[in-house]
Amino acid sequence: MLRIAVLGCGRIGRMHAANVSRHARTSLAMVYDIDAGAAGEVAANLGVRVARTSDEVFDSGDVDAVLVATATPTHADYIERAVAAGKPVLCEKPIDLDLARVDLCGGRIAGSRVPVQIGFNRRFDPGHRAAREAVAAGEIGTLHQVIITSRDPALPPVAYLRQAGGLFRDMTIHDFDLARFMLGEEPEEVFALAGALVNPDLGKELGEVDSAMFVLRTASGKQCHINNIRCAVYGYDQRVELVGQSGMVLSDNRKPHEVRRFLAQRTEAAEPYLLFFLERYSEAFMAEIDAFVDTVERGGTASPGFEDGRRALILAEAAYVSLREERIVRVAEIA
Amino acid sequence: MLRIAVLGCGRIGRMHAANVSRHARTSLAMVYDIDAGAAGEVAANLGVRVARTSDEVFDSGDVDAVLVATATPTHADYIERAVAAGKPVLCEKPIDLDLARVDLCGGRIAGSRVPVQIGFNRRFDPGHRAAREAVAAGEIGTLHQVIITSRDPALPPVAYLRQAGGLFRDMTIHDFDLARFMLGEEPEEVFALAGALVNPDLGKELGEVDSAMFVLRTASGKQCHINNIRCAVYGYDQRVELVGQSGMVLSDNRKPHEVRRFLAQRTEAAEPYLLFFLERYSEAFMAEIDAFVDTVERGGTASPGFEDGRRALILAEAAYVSLREERIVRVAEIA
Amino acid sequence: MLRIAVLGCGRIGRMHAANVSRHARTSLAMVYDIDAGAAGEVAANLGVRVARTSDEVFDSGDVDAVLVATATPTHADYIERAVAAGKPVLCEKPIDLDLARVDLCGGRIAGSRVPVQIGFNRRFDPGHRAAREAVAAGEIGTLHQVIITSRDPALPPVAYLRQAGGLFRDMTIHDFDLARFMLGEEPEEVFALAGALVNPDLGKELGEVDSAMFVLRTASGKQCHINNIRCAVYGYDQRVELVGQSGMVLSDNRKPHEVRRFLAQRTEAAEPYLLFFLERYSEAFMAEIDAFVDTVERGGTASPGFEDGRRALILAEAAYVSLREERIVRVAEIA
Amino acid sequence: MLRIAVLGCGRIGRMHAANVSRHARTSLAMVYDIDAGAAGEVAANLGVRVARTSDEVFDSGDVDAVLVATATPTHADYIERAVAAGKPVLCEKPIDLDLARVDLCGGRIAGSRVPVQIGFNRRFDPGHRAAREAVAAGEIGTLHQVIITSRDPALPPVAYLRQAGGLFRDMTIHDFDLARFMLGEEPEEVFALAGALVNPDLGKELGEVDSAMFVLRTASGKQCHINNIRCAVYGYDQRVELVGQSGMVLSDNRKPHEVRRFLAQRTEAAEPYLLFFLERYSEAFMAEIDAFVDTVERGGTASPGFEDGRRALILAEAAYVSLREERIVRVAEIA
Repeated sequence: MLRIAVLGCGRIGRMHAANVSRHARTSLAMVYDIDAGAAGEVAANLGVRVARTSDEVFDSGDVDAVLVATATPTHADYIERAVAAGKPVLCEKPIDLDLARVDLCGGRIAGSRVPVQIGFNRRFDPGHRAAREAVAAGEIGTLHQVIITSRDPALPPVAYLRQAGGLFRDMTIHDFDLARFMLGEEPEEVFALAGALVNPDLGKELGEVDSAMFVLRTASGKQCHINNIRCAVYGYDQRVELVGQSGMVLSDNRKPHEVRRFLAQRTEAAEPYLLFFLERYSEAFMAEIDAFVDTVERGGTASPGFEDGRRALILAEAAYVSLREERIVRVAEIA
Repeated sequence: MLRIAVLGCGRIGRMHAANVSRHARTSLAMVYDIDAGAAGEVAANLGVRVARTSDEVFDSGDVDAVLVATATPTHADYIERAVAAGKPVLCEKPIDLDLARVDLCGGRIAGSRVPVQIGFNRRFDPGHRAAREAVAAGEIGTLHQVIITSRDPALPPVAYLRQAGGLFRDMTIHDFDLARFMLGEEPEEVFALAGALVNPDLGKELGEVDSAMFVLRTASGKQCHINNIRCAVYGYDQRVELVGQSGMVLSDNRKPHEVRRFLAQRTEAAEPYLLFFLERYSEAFMAEIDAFVDTVERGGTASPGFEDGRRALILAEAAYVSLREERIVRVAEIA
Repeated sequence: MLRIAVLGCGRIGRMHAANVSRHARTSLAMVYDIDAGAAGEVAANLGVRVARTSDEVFDSGDVDAVLVATATPTHADYIERAVAAGKPVLCEKPIDLDLARVDLCGGRIAGSRVPVQIGFNRRFDPGHRAAREAVAAGEIGTLHQVIITSRDPALPPVAYLRQAGGLFRDMTIHDFDLARFMLGEEPEEVFALAGALVNPDLGKELGEVDSAMFVLRTASGKQCHINNIRCAVYGYDQRVELVGQSGMVLSDNRKPHEVRRFLAQRTEAAEPYLLFFLERYSEAFMAEIDAFVDTVERGGTASPGFEDGRRALILAEAAYVSLREERIVRVAEIA
Repeated sequence: MLRIAVLGCGRIGRMHAANVSRHARTSLAMVYDIDAGAAGEVAANLGVRVARTSDEVFDSGDVDAVLVATATPTHADYIERAVAAGKPVLCEKPIDLDLARVDLCGGRIAGSRVPVQIGFNRRFDPGHRAAREAVAAGEIGTLHQVIITSRDPALPPVAYLRQAGGLFRDMTIHDFDLARFMLGEEPEEVFALAGALVNPDLGKELGEVDSAMFVLRTASGKQCHINNIRCAVYGYDQRVELVGQSGMVLSDNRKPHEVRRFLAQRTEAAEPYLLFFLERYSEAFMAEIDAFVDTVERGGTASPGFEDGRRALILAEAAYVSLREERIVRVAEIA
């Protein structure tokens, strides 16, 4: 059993703590949060102890590895401390909102063999993964186009938006990572177009966008489209479409169950899609712990790793340049 | 061009007349109805002439074949007259509501080589036919079970019900024929259970049922279930499920188009199914004319033919005995 | 936390032990099996102790309730002992293969208020349950017909079949229970037709059937069809269709994920359905523990309870009479 | 009956001639083709006469209207001649590959009230139209994003590609029109990215592309993505997705029938999609004749009309500039 400490007891931290606690190959060593009350509640529910400081976590001989689910500005610090302490770390995305800070962190952990895994959970979704594997197995011949549909059910609160770093770094970053995963090649060019369509006022006040379309291209010419919008009242809409020389593979949405209604006005009507990421990607969040344990136990490089986190952020930065300059931006212009 | 006269200008006769008129291999020679006004209207729309009597149809040198879509009690007569006149006949189901009359007709036309095709249109539905062909091609191994779902959108008017001969002879007769077509073997045993669930009053007044379940078995043991109900507000529900040793083939419903709605309460909601048989089986009605022309032009036995019409009626009779006696009835008990 | 002991460490017992162990409201107190090795393995995996005898379970002050997943012939005994010991019991179906034994057990526990829940897991499937609730909420008006499709992926081993009590008591019993649950009324009449289509040899040797069709009717006239077959190579096929005066609700199958392939020969091709009941009904097995805990903690009658177990067996017995006598059998003839 | 002459007896002309011939409100007056043999064959099949020259068509008193399905370079001429002759014209897209020629034609017919309808058949597809109407009816609130998937089954022959004017003017032009139709607003900005992925050699030889992604934006900020590729072996893939503030409407593909296979490897497997535009849009081609007759008989402006044909071409031109300059292009830069 890998003894994992969870840092951060907010919404996603609580989910991770519960997952670590019930995962067959891990145990929850302790939890920590700057809000001791939040940590205490999780600890009580799961029957573990609270670390009073983050130092206590990194110093503890009872902690084999750490899972970082704290606020974004702490991620890079905690990654550095975990690596320094020789503790493998699974860190929520993004590494940081600032590429310079990410690169600084990258420099500081360079050369270490302590596994650093980034929480791009969607790579572990059974459907998305099976789609990727079908392509890798040659089922659709050479891959030509990838279309990623990624829609949040609603706008987050303004308070969240103020510190989230912008749509591309907060929400699209998952899609940029998924694009890289699905394309199997590095995107070299990025185009972005975006606006505040769901809530134009928010756009004016925060300069934030809520609806966007992207086009990416790899060196070999593979094309990728991403569309984002934050108003999918019918559920968290998460689809990946892979088009190749000899076919298409589609990873579609998941419903809570398979009941369909047939009434006078509509037939075959299904349930709304699962809301929200905790529900839609519940299997993926467990599977990413699985992968983390595998890496820790068997050695090898964590995947998705630090560089994957950095690459996704670079795509977000390139997309922001494209948005401002209304042109294709070469990723090489950014980093 | 096969010159076909259409007898009967009611709802289904009008449809047949229009089909004959626009079919690439047939022309509409003339139309006839006991209601001269009805015939006149069809004739005017389609630019053909009205026969004043049915004799005129059977005697005409301009008529190569006849399509009978008149009231049921005239079917057997018209079949006999068409055969006597040497004109191939495509006759709507049922041949007659009375098995004795059917057998009399059978005796009278025995030995003739004039093609007699019965209007079991469902055999020509592209989906049902493809399903049957998949089984014939061995795609699901030995066929074991057939499940036929057949639901009318609503109860017909009482006036119709009074003369329709009862649910089994009027509605289920199509399913009995489809069962024979799909099973590829003769059902030897029949069980029926029925009731007036949609309109219990009608049941009391007419002794009619509107909801039924059947189980059939062939000599080799193949099993078949049919369910009927006359209240499918979501559309005319027509499905066939074929289960074999190594798989299942399903022929499902057809919608007017493939629009789906995704709203807060429901996702993937499609249109109601096509209403009613004229719409759902529009391709089938054209294809049965195709088959009729093929038989007339190339020779051979019409299919479904007279004996198919008789067999379906025998199954209906067996089902009525089963309903009364609450037991399995052997088809051999009937005929 | 309700401390539950699990008796029986075979396939389904292992699953139950793991579920009890990770359920938020229960803990696994101990496990027992006549095969001490099997029990030891489960105990080691889940970190609990093995009871050396079943007495130890029923006598233990550390055991609040028991879950019985042993061989069928022991069920009635264990129910009686659990009730005598005042320990609520969740017992796998069937109570016994012999109705007389069931009735004896029923007499012995009569008057006790110790909850006895029977493991009809399908009632807890999120889809089936939502379908039932949609009907109860009046979404489709008065319910008229229920169609239950229930197909096992393959024939079980001969050794299993020799002691399983026959298809109707072993497999269909789940469908009989589901029929009662969905109909919301007691079936009063049963018709059954069955054969050995998947493996005729087995039929000859064991007198066993592997393919069956049933029709049931309630006092108010509601109709229900069940079809069973043990050769669904495309997965464990579990569907419920509910047809009412104003619509239909369908609870369909569940796939491991929502990937679809679009290739030259086929489009929209999905994964095989989940195999087998442990996978397909994994949520249901957890939810039935939930219901059990609710009953134990809040009081009230367990549901599905002892009488539900008895009623399903009576339907199986009626079905066997129908099979032999080829007629509708009134349930009142049996009990 | 509107007497329509069909000019052009190639693949699409033959289809139009047959449609005009069997449409309830039109008759086929005559056909014309520079290849007299092609015209003769159509004339013989449909029982009409061949015009020896195009003048004969425009001069004939037996011709109420013309349908132009000839080679693209003749379209503008024939439109001008039809208008001059006072004969309403339904002309296949595009008006011309050269915007200057289109504008010249536009100038010449300016002020005339003779209806000019352009053959953007997809606007008449029952599904696409119902989707548009659902949006117009407010079913999904304010429209924000449109996603058009449009994939040909295979690359056309090189000979065709040499004169087709390039992917954007030949294939995407339909999607540009559909985008305008669905958005309900004029796109003001266009971005395009394309490559020769299906056949890189063809790319090198002809400078042609076969795979493309577009992003468009209207004045109010609505976003639209189009993806094209010429290798959909699973069928002609034609989908429109409309996302609004309160829901999504999807117009999906059409299959020849609704058979699905459930086998050991795959479940729910459907038929390949209809190949090709003649089949997929067969209802649409009939419905566009309907609309044409309506306009001719009732007066009013043809829709889609000449300006729609011009606008779609302008979007194609803007897309080519974007492709070359790798930036957003304002439509106002073009015209």
